Amino acid sequence: MDKTIELLLNHKSIRKYTDQQVSQETIDIIISSAQMAPTSSHFQAYTIIEVKDLKKRRLLADWAGGQKWVESAPLVLLFCGDLFRAEKYYEDIDKDALTNTESYTVATIDAALAAQKAFIAGQALGLGGVCVGGIRNEVEKISEEFGLPDLVFPLFLLCLGYPDQDPGLKPRLPQEIVHKIDFYDDRKDQELMEAYNKTVSDYYDKRTDGKEKDRWTERCGKYLSEKPRYNVGEHFRKIRLLKK
Amino acid sequence: MDKTIELLLNHKSIRKYTDQQVSQETIDIIISSAQMAPTSSHFQAYTIIEVKDLKKRRLLADWAGGQKWVESAPLVLLFCGDLFRAEKYYEDIDKDALTNTESYTVATIDAALAAQKAFIAGQALGLGGVCVGGIRNEVEKISEEFGLPDLVFPLFLLCLGYPDQDPGLKPRLPQEIVHKIDFYDDRKDQELMEAYNKTVSDYYDKRTDGKEKDRWTERCGKYLSEKPRYNVGEHFRKIRLLKK
Repeated sequence: MDKTIELLLNHKSIRKYTDQQVSQETIDIIISSAQMAPTSSHFQAYTIIEVKDLKKRRLLADWAGGQKWVESAPLVLLFCGDLFRAEKYYEDIDKDALTNTESYTVATIDAALAAQKAFIAGQALGLGGVCVGGIRNEVEKISEEFGLPDLVFPLFLLCLGYPDQDPGLKPRLPQEIVHKIDFYDDRKDQELMEAYNKTVSDYYDKRTDGKEKDRWTERCGKYLSEKPRYNVGEHFRKIRLLKK
Repeated sequence: MDKTIELLLNHKSIRKYTDQQVSQETIDIIISSAQMAPTSSHFQAYTIIEVKDLKKRRLLADWAGGQKWVESAPLVLLFCGDLFRAEKYYEDIDKDALTNTESYTVATIDAALAAQKAFIAGQALGLGGVCVGGIRNEVEKISEEFGLPDLVFPLFLLCLGYPDQDPGLKPRLPQEIVHKIDFYDDRKDQELMEAYNKTVSDYYDKRTDGKEKDRWTERCGKYLSEKPRYNVGEHFRKIRLLKK
């Protein structure tokens, strides 16, 4: 199999890292790869903040709900949507167009596309990592700590390091649920979902020696209700996003 | 250089394709790669609709403002954020948590991460392509045409095919503007931006034999003001997204 495809199919979240540091050359390749992601109208509406400061790392780990790997990962990148640059530099703009749902969507997609490329570049160079969306628990505090101007909004971290663990692949939804042809036809989804629930339950059962057997629909329901994060919408509107 | 890194750094938008079709095996690898993207809380909050129907292709090309490659690309994938599955299947959920800005953000990021992996998988298998966000001109019509239930929202297309052109690499923002350390320090950005404006102007000058010499800040300003897409926010709120 093609090496790149193999890498793409073997994605796992890596949360434990060896002591080996990530060289500046590797970081530069990761950032350059991120920058070569596709971007809407060539806006490049994102900023990546490398978090080196240990105090800031601890705060982020804490705000994300105690995710220690944010402290221990050799490389931590904070991906932000960025419409501040647009407001400051774009010429003759319609300011309402900058603060509407479309622009928020553009910046969020741009940031995610760039992050995925950064992630794959890291993996190609032997690193492993994990995305941490949990930092959205405290978007306002993060904005203060990192001096984010209005219209710059924190989305998630990418933590990277040389892997010191090898977890199994996590089973994904059946392809037929996620991949439709020409129409959103979900008539078979219920049945497929039941099979997937069993797959996920078995996966956790094995991984936890029977301590946990959550179905997918049960687990996701819990996660969604535990972390509603209404602060995201509140803060993002305060910094003039999502006005229309 | 590592082959994967080379591929990541050599990204170009490809809009012209040879007649060679994309095999089902290749499509399956592309979708499987997309599914192995990281996903927030394992929600996998996206759906990919493969657009085979030529009538639908023509509509999309038209709605995107006359982007012919939507008709001619051998493979066209419509990436949607999907919170309908969450509402239908997740157990014991807080429904407000489903329709807030956080959930919209999760689904949009999930869809973009998956799309970027699909894109890279395609490129690794010899395909080239382009993302088409222009379809957001007509999110409501797309929702009707593809039978999208409430809480499923169209984001962009990924058009793929075997390349029949080889455009140059488009210059990205200077790394120092996009990559910050520990703090959003933009004191050098203005100066860097002037240099970048010249780079972009020269790039278009060369590509168009002097017919076009737009600065980046000028070009982006035009694009932003020409396509404000207020319909995105309007329609997405109608289908119960972004309520809080």
